[in-house]
Amino acid sequence: MTLREKTTAFIETNQVRNFIVAVIVFNAVILGMETSDRLMSTAGPLILLLDRICLGIFVVELLLKLFAYRGRFFRSGWNIFDFVIVGVSLIPGNGGLSVLRALRILRVLRVISVVPSLRRVVEGFVTALPGMGSVFLLMGIVFYIGAVMATKLFGDAFPEWFGTLGRSGYSLFQIMTLESWSMGIVRPVMEVYPYAWVFFVPFIMVTTFAVVNLLVGLIVNSMQDAHAEETNAATDSYRDEVLAKLAAIEKKLEERG
Amino acid sequence: MTLREKTTAFIETNQVRNFIVAVIVFNAVILGMETSDRLMSTAGPLILLLDRICLGIFVVELLLKLFAYRGRFFRSGWNIFDFVIVGVSLIPGNGGLSVLRALRILRVLRVISVVPSLRRVVEGFVTALPGMGSVFLLMGIVFYIGAVMATKLFGDAFPEWFGTLGRSGYSLFQIMTLESWSMGIVRPVMEVYPYAWVFFVPFIMVTTFAVVNLLVGLIVNSMQDAHAEETNAATDSYRDEVLAKLAAIEKKLEERG
Amino acid sequence: MTLREKTTAFIETNQVRNFIVAVIVFNAVILGMETSDRLMSTAGPLILLLDRICLGIFVVELLLKLFAYRGRFFRSGWNIFDFVIVGVSLIPGNGGLSVLRALRILRVLRVISVVPSLRRVVEGFVTALPGMGSVFLLMGIVFYIGAVMATKLFGDAFPEWFGTLGRSGYSLFQIMTLESWSMGIVRPVMEVYPYAWVFFVPFIMVTTFAVVNLLVGLIVNSMQDAHAEETNAATDSYRDEVLAKLAAIEKKLEERG
Amino acid sequence: MTLREKTTAFIETNQVRNFIVAVIVFNAVILGMETSDRLMSTAGPLILLLDRICLGIFVVELLLKLFAYRGRFFRSGWNIFDFVIVGVSLIPGNGGLSVLRALRILRVLRVISVVPSLRRVVEGFVTALPGMGSVFLLMGIVFYIGAVMATKLFGDAFPEWFGTLGRSGYSLFQIMTLESWSMGIVRPVMEVYPYAWVFFVPFIMVTTFAVVNLLVGLIVNSMQDAHAEETNAATDSYRDEVLAKLAAIEKKLEERG
Repeated sequence: MTLREKTTAFIETNQVRNFIVAVIVFNAVILGMETSDRLMSTAGPLILLLDRICLGIFVVELLLKLFAYRGRFFRSGWNIFDFVIVGVSLIPGNGGLSVLRALRILRVLRVISVVPSLRRVVEGFVTALPGMGSVFLLMGIVFYIGAVMATKLFGDAFPEWFGTLGRSGYSLFQIMTLESWSMGIVRPVMEVYPYAWVFFVPFIMVTTFAVVNLLVGLIVNSMQDAHAEETNAATDSYRDEVLAKLAAIEKKLEERG
Repeated sequence: MTLREKTTAFIETNQVRNFIVAVIVFNAVILGMETSDRLMSTAGPLILLLDRICLGIFVVELLLKLFAYRGRFFRSGWNIFDFVIVGVSLIPGNGGLSVLRALRILRVLRVISVVPSLRRVVEGFVTALPGMGSVFLLMGIVFYIGAVMATKLFGDAFPEWFGTLGRSGYSLFQIMTLESWSMGIVRPVMEVYPYAWVFFVPFIMVTTFAVVNLLVGLIVNSMQDAHAEETNAATDSYRDEVLAKLAAIEKKLEERG
Repeated sequence: MTLREKTTAFIETNQVRNFIVAVIVFNAVILGMETSDRLMSTAGPLILLLDRICLGIFVVELLLKLFAYRGRFFRSGWNIFDFVIVGVSLIPGNGGLSVLRALRILRVLRVISVVPSLRRVVEGFVTALPGMGSVFLLMGIVFYIGAVMATKLFGDAFPEWFGTLGRSGYSLFQIMTLESWSMGIVRPVMEVYPYAWVFFVPFIMVTTFAVVNLLVGLIVNSMQDAHAEETNAATDSYRDEVLAKLAAIEKKLEERG
Repeated sequence: MTLREKTTAFIETNQVRNFIVAVIVFNAVILGMETSDRLMSTAGPLILLLDRICLGIFVVELLLKLFAYRGRFFRSGWNIFDFVIVGVSLIPGNGGLSVLRALRILRVLRVISVVPSLRRVVEGFVTALPGMGSVFLLMGIVFYIGAVMATKLFGDAFPEWFGTLGRSGYSLFQIMTLESWSMGIVRPVMEVYPYAWVFFVPFIMVTTFAVVNLLVGLIVNSMQDAHAEETNAATDSYRDEVLAKLAAIEKKLEERG
C-alpha cells in the first residue's frame, strides 16, 4: 500500500468527514461572531486566529485530496466547488476590500459538498435547470426587449428607473416580482405617459405566465420521475410473470398439439 | 369494573367529547370578548369568572385523563399538546406579563386535538415536514450565509436593516417574501453601494427557487400517496385474479399432460 | 299540450336562451355607461329607461319559469341564484342607497347561469370547496387566535391596526397576503415591541403553509378526477377482455377435463 | 428545377437559417446600443446604418419567402408573425413617434420563429390558452362587475383610482396582484367608507382563487399529456402481446375441441 493509497483511505474515512463537517460548523459560528462589534473589540485577535486555523485545516484537506486523487480531483464538480471556495479565502483582502472578506463566509457552503443529503438536493436543483433552458432563454429575450423598449420610451422622463439598459432591467425584474409595481413605478409613469399601462400590464402577464410555466414544468418532471420509479418496481415484475405464464401455457398446448 | 376503567369509559364517550368542544368554543368567545374595553368595563368580572370556569373544566378533564391512562397519557403527542396548553394558562400572569395573558387564547387550539378531521389535517402537515428537512436545512444555510454577508457589507451604512445578524436575518426574510424588497430596501442600499443588486437579486432567485422546490416536493408526495392508495385498491384485486386464473389453467394442463 | 307545457317548451328553446344572453350583455354595457358622468348628462334618461326594460325582460322570464316549473323551480341552485339577483334589483334604491344601486351590476352574473361552459367552471369551483373545509376551518381558528393575541398585545399601542378584533383580523389578512407586512406593519410595531417578530413571522409561515396546502389539495384532487376518468375509459375494457378470455379458456379446459 | 424551387431550397438550408439568427442577435445588440446616449453621440450614424442593413436583410429574406411559397406563405402563423414584425419596422417613424421607433426592438422576437426549441415553448403556451378560455371569460366578467361597482361606490371620493371604468379596472388589476392593495388603496378608502373591505376582501379571494384554478388546470393538462405519451409507449405493446397470446391459446383449444 503506497503513501497515496494510504492518504486516499484516510481522507475517505467517516471520522475525517465528520471532523471536516465539525470544522465547517465551528468556522460558521466564528465568522458569525466577526459581525459583532462588541465581540470583536473584546476577543478580536482570538476570533481571527481561530478563523485562520479553520482555513488552514481546509487547505491541508484540499492538498491531501489533490495528492491522493491528482488529475481525477478536477473531474468532480464538487471538488472544483471546494477548490474555488477555499481559494477565494486565500486571496489577501487586507487592502480595504470588504467584499473579499465578506466572501469568506461562502466557505460554509462546503457543508453542501460534504453532507450527502444536502448534495442530493442541490444536484436535484441543478439537473432540473437544463430542462427549463428554453423557458429561461425566452424570459431573457422578453427582458431584453422590455428593457430596450422601456429605456427608449421612459428613459428620458425617469432616468432613475429606466435611464440605461441595466436600470430598466433591474426595474423590470422588480415589476416581475410585483413589488410596488403599480404605486411605486407605473402610476408615477402614467402621470407623464397615460398609456404606459399598455406596456407594463402585458409585460407582467407574460412574465408571470412564463414563471408559472417554469413551475408547471418542474412539477410535471418531478412527477414523471417519481412515477417512473414507482411503476418500474411493482408493475414490471407482474408483467413479466403474466407473460411467462402465458408462454408456458402456449408451449404446453403446442407440445400436445 | 374498577374505578379507572369506569373513568376511561366515561371520558371516551361522545357526550364528554362534544361537551369539551362546546366548552372550547364558549371559551374562545369569552376570550374574544376580553379584547373589548367596552364589554370589560360593564361585565368584566363575569367574563373573567366564566373564563376561570372553562379553565377549571379543562383541568378536571386533564386530571381524569391522567388518572385513567397514567403513563400511557404522555405517549400521545396530542395529550402532551393539551397538557402544555392548559399548563401555560395556569401560570399566574398578574405581574404585568401581558404576553402570558395573551397566550391563554392558545387554549382554542385544543379544538384541533379533539375534532378528528382537524387532527388529520395537522397530522398531514406534520408528516409532510420531515421529507422537506434537507431543503429547510439548505435554506437555513443560505439565510445564515446571506445574513453574515449582508451584515459585513451593508451593516455600517444601514444599521437599522443590517446592523446585526438578527436584523439582517429579518430583513432577508422580508426580502424573500418580496415585500418592499426593491423600493424599501435594495434601491436605498444601491444609492450607497451601486452593486448591491449583485447580492440581492441572486439571493431572491435562490430562495424563491428553493420555496418553489418545497412546493413541488409537497405536491409530488401528496400525489404519490393518493396514487398508491387508489391503485392498490382496484389494481391489486385484478392482478391477483389474473394470476390465479393463469395458475389454474396451467395446473389443469399439467394434470392432463 | 297545456299552457304550462307550452311555456316550458318556449323558455327552453335556444332562441330564448340566446336572447336572454344578448339582453344580459346589452344590460352590462348599459350599466357600464351609467358610470360615465358625461354620458349620463347627455343621455341619462334613455340609459335608465333601457336598464328598466332589461330588468323588465328578466322579471318576465323569471315569472314564466316560475309558472312553468312551480315548486321544482327552487330545487335548482342556479334558479335561486337568478331569483335573488333579479330580486335585489327590484328593491327601490332611490333613497340615497348607492350600495343597492351598485348591486344591480350583479345581474351580469346571470351570464354564468345561462352559458353552460361558465356554469361548469363555477360548479367545479364550488365542488372543490367542501374537500378543503377542514383546512378552511383550521385557517379560521388560526386567524381568530391571531386576532385575539394581536389585539391583546399590540391593541393599545396601535389602535389603528389592532384596536379591535375586526381590525386585527383585517390587518392579519393583509399580512397573510404579504402586502407591506414588514415595512408597513411589523417594523413600526417592532419599534415599540422589539420581539413582535416572534408573533408575526411564525404567523406568516403557518398561514402561507396552509394556503400552499389548499393549493396542493386542489391539484391532487383535480389530478385524481382526471386520472380516474382517463383510466376508466381505456383500462376497464382491456381488463374485462382479458378476464373474459381467461374465463373462456378455463371453461373449455373444464369441458374436456 | 425552376427558379422558385431553387429559392425554396436556398432559404431552407441550415446556413441561411443560422445566418438569419446571427443577424437577429447582431440587430438586438445594435438596438440595445441605440439606448446609450454616449454611444449614439460618438457612433450614431454607424449604428443607424447597421440597423438599416439588418432590416434590409430581413426584407430580402421575407421577399424571397413570399416568392418561394406564394399563397402558402400566409398559411403559417409564424410567417404572418414575421411579416407583421418586419412590416412595423418599415413604417416611417421620423415624425416624433417614439413609440414606433421603440417597437422596432420587437424584431428580436423573430428569434422565436427561427429557433425550433423556442418555437415549441411558445406553441406550448398558446395551445394551453384555449383550455383556459372559460376561466379567462369568468375573470373578465368578475373584473367588469368589480370595475362598475368600484366606480359607482368609490368613484366620487377617489377619482384618481376609481374615477372611470378604465381606472377602476387598472386599480383592481393592481389589487389582484396584491400590490399595495391594503396600505395603498383599501385603508385610505376605508377611512371614508369603513365597510369598503366587504367589497375588496372577497374580490381578492375570488380573483386569486380563479388564478389558482388556472394554474391547477395548466398543471393537470400538462400532466395528462405527459402521462398519456408515457403510457402509450410502454403499456400498449404489453397489452397487445397479452391479448394476442390469449387469442392464440383460445384458437388452439378450439382447433382441438
